[in-house]
Amino acid sequence: MLQATQSEVFQEITNDLLLSSSLWANIALAGLSILLFVYMGRNVEEPRAKLVWGATLLIPLVSISSYTALVSGLTVGFIEMPAGHALAGEEVLSQWGRYLTWALSTPMILLALGLLADADLGSLFTVVAADIAMCVTGLAAALVTSSYALRWVFYGISCAFFVVVLYAVLVEWPRSAAAAGTGEIFGTLRALTVVLWLGYPIIWAVGVEGLALVESVGLTSWGYSLLDIGAKYVFAFLLLRWVAANQDVVAGSGLTTETESRAAPVDD
Amino acid sequence: MLQATQSEVFQEITNDLLLSSSLWANIALAGLSILLFVYMGRNVEEPRAKLVWGATLLIPLVSISSYTALVSGLTVGFIEMPAGHALAGEEVLSQWGRYLTWALSTPMILLALGLLADADLGSLFTVVAADIAMCVTGLAAALVTSSYALRWVFYGISCAFFVVVLYAVLVEWPRSAAAAGTGEIFGTLRALTVVLWLGYPIIWAVGVEGLALVESVGLTSWGYSLLDIGAKYVFAFLLLRWVAANQDVVAGSGLTTETESRAAPVDD
Amino acid sequence: MLQATQSEVFQEITNDLLLSSSLWANIALAGLSILLFVYMGRNVEEPRAKLVWGATLLIPLVSISSYTALVSGLTVGFIEMPAGHALAGEEVLSQWGRYLTWALSTPMILLALGLLADADLGSLFTVVAADIAMCVTGLAAALVTSSYALRWVFYGISCAFFVVVLYAVLVEWPRSAAAAGTGEIFGTLRALTVVLWLGYPIIWAVGVEGLALVESVGLTSWGYSLLDIGAKYVFAFLLLRWVAANQDVVAGSGLTTETESRAAPVDD
Repeated sequence: MLQATQSEVFQEITNDLLLSSSLWANIALAGLSILLFVYMGRNVEEPRAKLVWGATLLIPLVSISSYTALVSGLTVGFIEMPAGHALAGEEVLSQWGRYLTWALSTPMILLALGLLADADLGSLFTVVAADIAMCVTGLAAALVTSSYALRWVFYGISCAFFVVVLYAVLVEWPRSAAAAGTGEIFGTLRALTVVLWLGYPIIWAVGVEGLALVESVGLTSWGYSLLDIGAKYVFAFLLLRWVAANQDVVAGSGLTTETESRAAPVDD
Repeated sequence: MLQATQSEVFQEITNDLLLSSSLWANIALAGLSILLFVYMGRNVEEPRAKLVWGATLLIPLVSISSYTALVSGLTVGFIEMPAGHALAGEEVLSQWGRYLTWALSTPMILLALGLLADADLGSLFTVVAADIAMCVTGLAAALVTSSYALRWVFYGISCAFFVVVLYAVLVEWPRSAAAAGTGEIFGTLRALTVVLWLGYPIIWAVGVEGLALVESVGLTSWGYSLLDIGAKYVFAFLLLRWVAANQDVVAGSGLTTETESRAAPVDD
Repeated sequence: MLQATQSEVFQEITNDLLLSSSLWANIALAGLSILLFVYMGRNVEEPRAKLVWGATLLIPLVSISSYTALVSGLTVGFIEMPAGHALAGEEVLSQWGRYLTWALSTPMILLALGLLADADLGSLFTVVAADIAMCVTGLAAALVTSSYALRWVFYGISCAFFVVVLYAVLVEWPRSAAAAGTGEIFGTLRALTVVLWLGYPIIWAVGVEGLALVESVGLTSWGYSLLDIGAKYVFAFLLLRWVAANQDVVAGSGLTTETESRAAPVDD
């Protein structure tokens, strides 16, 4: 039955132009981004800059895997909404794979931001753990079909984890970034990330999975896809362009340059 | 069919007062713990102390997510026990989500303990990997329905991973803790952890999933829930209270204070 | 239905001597390897050598869990191949659990190799992330049943991640290994790893999941099992034998010896 569903879902997606275009657009853009980023990174030599570049390159790579899984129907399924939901009793197409792959791709974004801000390891660890928990509880919110209230309980828990992430990105990391001399580019990327990431819970709330004010699966999917384009490919492009041009600033301090830093006193 | 099961399971849990109270009690206590811990951490400023605090705060956050998933029926299911099991052929309610979320929450406990003991990165990595493997093989032990013998084979493998964890916590880390000046609090938390963690395989063995000497799903669930209360919220409370009062000791050495330590020789 | 499948699959595997022997052979060898490796590691004391030893020991521990899960039918299932596939419309036994557990065991192999080469943290992180993505997209390739073309798209993406891993292991790490004085053993293990790892995508391509030139599930399984024996147990044995005899070389530099290195200038 699950496999029949995979082929059925694949057919359903293929027949829905609005929905399938929202997925294929991202596959195409992720593919182009990968080629562009490999090209942009050809002259990055400094170890810490390479780490930022590597983490950034994984963003579109995970994204193209995610959207291919969605378009194939592998990580999409029909779920029956519980009593209380606007579409109660109806079978709604749920793209649950999005939440699963966000648990892989969003830590890369935070890792890139944290390395840029030269955040300490403790802060980075806590933020990434909260971010993964945010995605996993978002997955739970999408998959609960036994109780409408519990869907929103998970939505609330997921938002609580989001607040932890926001606190670090908005309050803690700007200080580190200023100290590391990366304040300007960090400010740009932070603004992009915070504004776009706020869009995801809003789409969930008004889309088919939440209040269903927007009842179209295709429109909801395009909402997520547009946010992904900004928060992933545009984000990564701006970051990589800056890293390629400022390898000396990136090299300044932190995680991967310990050997050199340690060696310094000996040379004196 | 899987979704029918989710609603059916949700109904089954709701109707079983003993079972549902074992879950809701933990949701309430985890929620209170989160509020209390955020309040207790308000004055923690030292980076390494903040890392311990962050890892500790994630323990009740993962726990509340875990229990909400259990109560909703999302991570619970009926499994048919294989020939040889005391309840062979019967459908038994399996809370398989517990094992999955332990794979997320128990590393946080070990991370907090390891940071407290100032364990080296190699030891910490090996213990966390063994701990995750212990939980995943425990999940396999719970889900195997094709052979009674293989359920116990997985139980044995899981216990082998547990021995690796016990070895580090009982033999290796006390030495590091003594050297780091955290021997007393480490000794208290180690005793709490070792005694309570030994309870989990015992409950598995005597509960519905193992020998079924206790045939009540509700009683088995209360067993796990009581252990969780001690091993998670009491553990975290004791640790946080100590960290908040001893930030200077925590700051002494280790992972996150490398920059300062490295800088020291230059100042001489 | 899913559980009926687990028992059915268990029965199917038990009745197929070629298939079941390919699994039991690995369970036996993994068990013997664990005992042997624990014995070989009895005198390893140096922290960095212990980290390499710990990561190496987890390889057969994860492997024995993986094969026990396969033999029990827990991580094996029948999938119906899509139109275009040589076995289109037929139910084929898919050992999808292999891909899942490779996502846990292959990072251990790369971690051991990277630590041996004294690779920088940035390189190690990028390679491990690409390796996990390689396994997860391999899993997707195995599970897609809605479209034959998309199976090969995932195969291609998985190979792209593999190229990233190969690049690091063949081009970047040899330089670090030479600098760290571990060039010879690294060269041996690199050759073993690269040659054997190239076998996996070849078996996928010619086996039942790809072109089905080999239509026997048992033969395909033996192909993977033989590769696993070389890439896991032989690899780990060679590595451990070298580490046990060269603890002083391993201690030379890197991740876990920071405390000692930092302390050095003070002693001058």
